[in-house]
Amino acid sequence: MNNKTIQASIIIIGNEILSGRTKDTNTSTLAIWLNSIGVKVSEVRVIPDIEEMIINTVNSLRKKYDYVFTSGGIGPTHDDVTASSISKAFGKKYQIHKEAFKILESYYKPGEFNEGRQKMVWMPEDAKLILNPTSGAPGFFIENVFCLPGVPSILNSMLGSLKNNIVGGEPIKSHTISLKTVESEIANSLTKVQKAFSDVEIGSYPFFQAGKLGVSIVIRSENQSKIDNCNSEILKFVKEKKIEIVDR
Amino acid sequence: MNNKTIQASIIIIGNEILSGRTKDTNTSTLAIWLNSIGVKVSEVRVIPDIEEMIINTVNSLRKKYDYVFTSGGIGPTHDDVTASSISKAFGKKYQIHKEAFKILESYYKPGEFNEGRQKMVWMPEDAKLILNPTSGAPGFFIENVFCLPGVPSILNSMLGSLKNNIVGGEPIKSHTISLKTVESEIANSLTKVQKAFSDVEIGSYPFFQAGKLGVSIVIRSENQSKIDNCNSEILKFVKEKKIEIVDR
Repeated sequence: MNNKTIQASIIIIGNEILSGRTKDTNTSTLAIWLNSIGVKVSEVRVIPDIEEMIINTVNSLRKKYDYVFTSGGIGPTHDDVTASSISKAFGKKYQIHKEAFKILESYYKPGEFNEGRQKMVWMPEDAKLILNPTSGAPGFFIENVFCLPGVPSILNSMLGSLKNNIVGGEPIKSHTISLKTVESEIANSLTKVQKAFSDVEIGSYPFFQAGKLGVSIVIRSENQSKIDNCNSEILKFVKEKKIEIVDR
Repeated sequence: MNNKTIQASIIIIGNEILSGRTKDTNTSTLAIWLNSIGVKVSEVRVIPDIEEMIINTVNSLRKKYDYVFTSGGIGPTHDDVTASSISKAFGKKYQIHKEAFKILESYYKPGEFNEGRQKMVWMPEDAKLILNPTSGAPGFFIENVFCLPGVPSILNSMLGSLKNNIVGGEPIKSHTISLKTVESEIANSLTKVQKAFSDVEIGSYPFFQAGKLGVSIVIRSENQSKIDNCNSEILKFVKEKKIEIVDR
């Protein structure tokens, strides 16, 4: 990974992930999408809906990474404290966003834009909107911090409108080789390949398929020819060791 | 949540989660199990297989929380750097654990305990073992940091042997009420209930079921009677507002 790699971190805000009740899928959705536009996710934090935690985490990560994405806590209920916390993190006023107000006012039927819903247009001063084609209420961003909802289908639908505000690098590509073997059989050979290709990321992941052990080797880089060369080296020892390649 | 709550953090170590290729399920498995023995998960971090990140994250979290659990990076390949990194985090020698060596020596057939597999018995000096009934190779713990593998089925099978080394508090209980409504309809009423029950955690989570919107309200506490009282208050406004309760 070279120095120019654009790096992001993700903050998943929500007690429901920390309690184990809900499994986080937004990290995977965001990471795959970010890779496709040349942004690498370097760290994820899952934190509770607690103002102090949100402020500290956002302020620590926004200085460390090119982009920070938060998911969760921007709805209308008492446990939605992301927008007010982000305002404090930036030392900005927490106030009604006029454009967001207009969007929701026309989104709902007359009389339905009630107090609860109006909470969703309170944002940090100077926040810019991220449009929401699914359920109206926009997300927002301020400097390099992008705030998205926690509901996976809504988050997913907002990525299109996000794209124009993110400057990525070369898309990060990957190639997977799945083998009918165990990690210890290939560990030494793989170490040698990793040493020869120090700027390519090689991961080794054991799996179970139809009751049998296997290993997926994943090669990742912005540079397709490096991936191809690394792949050839791996296939050499796979052939020598007479290891079966499997579909997966 | 009172001051005596036993708190833990989880560190998921693995590029495969950060790339989006694999969705993390170990957080949910660990959190549900920890809740059942009275330990609350207060923070999760997902970090890459990079020594410096592991050292810094472990050293920051082990001072902050009663327990730290790591998942991933203790296998035989080049990208498994958790055990050596934890040794450095504690300033301990990274060396062969004699008991682990004996376990794996007798686990494998003669001649099969090769160099790759032997890497899995290298641990920090003074580490204690966490037995692995699935695939032999033990995890380990040192002080309040517990290191588990990344493969979900193996991690899950090791919780039984972990249990004796964790001192929890009262199990954290929860009750869920699922409603055919939208969050904005109940936001104000729910805020009032949360204010009246400030030491009970009330979460509000929108869901989609059969194309219809709903909200699950989750009440969490170590104290069942507090949950019951809070539940009664919520059911009062649900009845007043004529909101339908749904199974989920």
